[in-house]
Amino acid sequence: MTLKPAKVDVRVGAARVFPALNWMTAYKRDDLVGDMMAGLIVAIMLVPQSMAYAMLAGLPPEIGLYSSMAPLIIYALFGSSRTLAVGPVAMVSLLTLSGIAVVAEQGTARFVALALTLALMTGVIQLLMGLFRLGFLVNYLSHPVLVGFTSAAAIVIGLSQLKHVLGVSIPKSEATYSVAANLWQALPKANPWTMLIGFGAIAILFYFKWLVEKNLSKLRMSAGLANAISKSGPLVVVFAGTIAVWLWGLNGTSAVKVVGSIPAGLPGFTIPELSMADIGALFPVALIISLVGFTESISIATTLASRRRQKIDANQELIALGAANVGAAVTGGYPVTGGLSRSAVNFSSGANTGLASVITAVLIGITLLFFTPLFYYLPQAVLGSMVIVAVVGLFDFKSFLTIWKYDKTDGIALLATFFGVLLFNIEAGIGIGIGTALLFFLHRTSKPHVAVVGRVGDTEHYRNVRRHEVSTCEETFAVRIDESLYFANAKTLENSLLGAVADNPKIRNIVLICSAVNFIDASALEILERVIEDLGSAGVRLCLAEVKGPVSDRLDRIGFLRHFGEENIFMSTHQAMKALGCER
Amino acid sequence: MTLKPAKVDVRVGAARVFPALNWMTAYKRDDLVGDMMAGLIVAIMLVPQSMAYAMLAGLPPEIGLYSSMAPLIIYALFGSSRTLAVGPVAMVSLLTLSGIAVVAEQGTARFVALALTLALMTGVIQLLMGLFRLGFLVNYLSHPVLVGFTSAAAIVIGLSQLKHVLGVSIPKSEATYSVAANLWQALPKANPWTMLIGFGAIAILFYFKWLVEKNLSKLRMSAGLANAISKSGPLVVVFAGTIAVWLWGLNGTSAVKVVGSIPAGLPGFTIPELSMADIGALFPVALIISLVGFTESISIATTLASRRRQKIDANQELIALGAANVGAAVTGGYPVTGGLSRSAVNFSSGANTGLASVITAVLIGITLLFFTPLFYYLPQAVLGSMVIVAVVGLFDFKSFLTIWKYDKTDGIALLATFFGVLLFNIEAGIGIGIGTALLFFLHRTSKPHVAVVGRVGDTEHYRNVRRHEVSTCEETFAVRIDESLYFANAKTLENSLLGAVADNPKIRNIVLICSAVNFIDASALEILERVIEDLGSAGVRLCLAEVKGPVSDRLDRIGFLRHFGEENIFMSTHQAMKALGCER
Repeated sequence: MTLKPAKVDVRVGAARVFPALNWMTAYKRDDLVGDMMAGLIVAIMLVPQSMAYAMLAGLPPEIGLYSSMAPLIIYALFGSSRTLAVGPVAMVSLLTLSGIAVVAEQGTARFVALALTLALMTGVIQLLMGLFRLGFLVNYLSHPVLVGFTSAAAIVIGLSQLKHVLGVSIPKSEATYSVAANLWQALPKANPWTMLIGFGAIAILFYFKWLVEKNLSKLRMSAGLANAISKSGPLVVVFAGTIAVWLWGLNGTSAVKVVGSIPAGLPGFTIPELSMADIGALFPVALIISLVGFTESISIATTLASRRRQKIDANQELIALGAANVGAAVTGGYPVTGGLSRSAVNFSSGANTGLASVITAVLIGITLLFFTPLFYYLPQAVLGSMVIVAVVGLFDFKSFLTIWKYDKTDGIALLATFFGVLLFNIEAGIGIGIGTALLFFLHRTSKPHVAVVGRVGDTEHYRNVRRHEVSTCEETFAVRIDESLYFANAKTLENSLLGAVADNPKIRNIVLICSAVNFIDASALEILERVIEDLGSAGVRLCLAEVKGPVSDRLDRIGFLRHFGEENIFMSTHQAMKALGCER
Repeated sequence: MTLKPAKVDVRVGAARVFPALNWMTAYKRDDLVGDMMAGLIVAIMLVPQSMAYAMLAGLPPEIGLYSSMAPLIIYALFGSSRTLAVGPVAMVSLLTLSGIAVVAEQGTARFVALALTLALMTGVIQLLMGLFRLGFLVNYLSHPVLVGFTSAAAIVIGLSQLKHVLGVSIPKSEATYSVAANLWQALPKANPWTMLIGFGAIAILFYFKWLVEKNLSKLRMSAGLANAISKSGPLVVVFAGTIAVWLWGLNGTSAVKVVGSIPAGLPGFTIPELSMADIGALFPVALIISLVGFTESISIATTLASRRRQKIDANQELIALGAANVGAAVTGGYPVTGGLSRSAVNFSSGANTGLASVITAVLIGITLLFFTPLFYYLPQAVLGSMVIVAVVGLFDFKSFLTIWKYDKTDGIALLATFFGVLLFNIEAGIGIGIGTALLFFLHRTSKPHVAVVGRVGDTEHYRNVRRHEVSTCEETFAVRIDESLYFANAKTLENSLLGAVADNPKIRNIVLICSAVNFIDASALEILERVIEDLGSAGVRLCLAEVKGPVSDRLDRIGFLRHFGEENIFMSTHQAMKALGCER
């Protein structure tokens, strides 16, 4: 970077904290149309969705709406993505429910208060992770673990919403099989009107999701309009369901449960309750929400940003999501993160900057101020059906098949997570999954691929003798190890080299090709020193070839290279083989 | 392997189970002299050592002798090392004490009975590990963890023996600082005669260990004889101490504690007690003994075998040590493993085959039958001083300094283990150490070295642009990632590539050099697919170069290569750069 006057440096510094300054200072009139359209469309989606997810989290519908204001504005200021749509999402709502249900009774004021506490804890954890640049921690949630968790969560969420669609009450229980059993037992008591509305809504939503676009394009409608109409399924079922209940008074004698009265007005400033006992009890789930929420969010943000050659900074994203969650906590909301479907709609509706999210937040505020009475007759079955349809796509059997075919160990980690979540609970499932994945990874790197290589024709390339037609030497073995040398695999190297010497009495030299060795830890160094000594006493000379810069710097620091002998170190395998008289 | 008649195959099969058949069937008369000398010298060392280690383990002296018979013969049959000397060692004795002391009172019959149980459990664990080829598990005990553990154990062992040298009794306690405090408080009650003998023995042992060889060679004595005399320190202190106590009757009014009467005769067949509660309580320590004992043993065996170009099979070693421990359990012994100093003496005294160990075992048996009364007056202070001098060398400050200089993370893992053992206990220390080492390892591989490379002169070599004078291309970036791609680091790659594209608007092609990529797990594959798509939508073509055989086989299996396009995959970086128009 070239030197610039201090004034500009300040702006660069401020833009690092508030990436929004980048688009604010360069805002163009052309950006506005796209931002306004996207803001409006997302708001229309978000109103019923946020209420539905609040219900999934065991919270009153207004909490969902409250979570869809301040966090959006805060994210627009701090976030490095310009098109990510933040707010309540299914997975985090499920985690909120499962975390708080252990501590408080659903439907109580304490349950709602703890949702704020959880948002604050999630926010603080994400802020700290961002400030201390611990974004890499999220990487330990491997793809198989996430697929297993998401698929299991889809089942858990779907089952949890079935009671709304059936119109029954079931006793609280954690394990999925007992939820299923309870639903089965409650089936005879199901409310026929609720079921009509619920399953009707599911049918309509699936029609809009899968078929409407195709049918409309047959009618020669423009693709853009057809796509917009296909997104309006939720609007249709909300409208139709509300009208039906209101017209026929189904919430009365027919006992169809409705959303009921939502307090009008904007949320006040709220201070979450904090007791050590609650913090301790909620910590595991706050950590999982922080990681899972961030993972979901960052992958959406990265994909959308790359389409326009924009950059996402993982640690800045953590700070932005953390601030958004703290914002949710102090304005009566529960944990939020970037949502997939809304972000995609935001992007494809033409959002250019964070202003789109600000517009969405303002529209939600207007809804809260003036339109809450409109949702009085909205049936809970409609909200439940919206959640069910949204999570169907999360059950990812195709990924499981691909992963299983690609790598059995990854497949096992996936299954372990999946059944862990279903049989025990979410925390246990994720823990089991991460543990399984780590063990398999260690096991994999502990058995490195060691190949004896030979020269390809007259080139300077050396390849595995088992895979290629190569020429080799009797007295000099060239061995390539395809892994960094560290405690879990250094003994394998020792066994390979000493074994080769014991099996081939003619060996006088071994060239160890280190092109795939990215580091040598202290354990491997100790074994390497022992191997050199052991080989020496057996009359075999060990040479190293293609040692990488960082590795040789480190070895140099403790005087290993001097002790080992510079004459035993070669830039390339070919140079080593030539020096050892194996090649002309 | 070529086909051979069935009869020979049977012998090869039998030799796989009993490696001893290899030397038995080819035994030469010349081997006998060396085996007899080594067997005798090791037996002379082993008699007092085994009693001292038994005392360290809180067991009567004869248990040490019992552990030095059957296990040696069994190891000679099953072991793949011809020169390893098996028997009681300091570290395993300490672990035995610390493990059983939690369950039973030292000095009781139950304590002794549980030592047998522990030997059986250790044996079964090692046998199972060997049969299921789990020898690699021991690799997770990294070098820093072992150094930290061994150094801390040296302090723990030294302190535990000081009471014998001081002639005091102190209350039982686990934490090292309270043992030290108790010793300090008991100091005024120390027995002057015991101290004279104890510190005298320590001085003599150190003299023999460090100075006698040098002094003798000044007298122009042959190196071999000088070396043999330098090993006779224990014999001298045992003899001198016994004579002194017997002559002056120090065990009477002067209250110098002696070994006392050892039951004469060979051990009978013993069946270890087994209750579920004991097995549960002893399991952690049995596991640690299995791993630590095996680690110590295998590294000695490997080093000695390599000097004569012989091979060691890790899983066979586990089976042999396991069988030896089961043998110890059924002949009144406690856990054993291969010992460093005795094996070195065995090797340098000329042991050629396992017969040396069999001779040692027979001599121990003769000692038990006829010579136990000779040890009646042997002062316990002498045995304690032998242990103290033996473990001084285990405190490895030099390795700590090297490791610290070489790699701070390894140094921290070492310190964590060291202080974990001293502040809590052995199990906790090792657990903390392994956990720390694993976390650091994951962290290290989660931040792979990613280098943009350029062409070196007119060669086909490509090197890091930051380290070498190379020529590069504006439209085509060649990027080398120095790590296998897996869940913990795949996002780093994504960030690097998408970041490079966002920073350099002119990029049209990226060549990803996979020479250091040894595997791509399902998480990384998923991200790779996303990156290809994201780059594609930004108008950038991704090519892969130098993909290894096993990696490309696996990618082929799920159709990735076909989908990705064969035209985007190149054997070498140079071919790719040429095809992309970057090089002529």
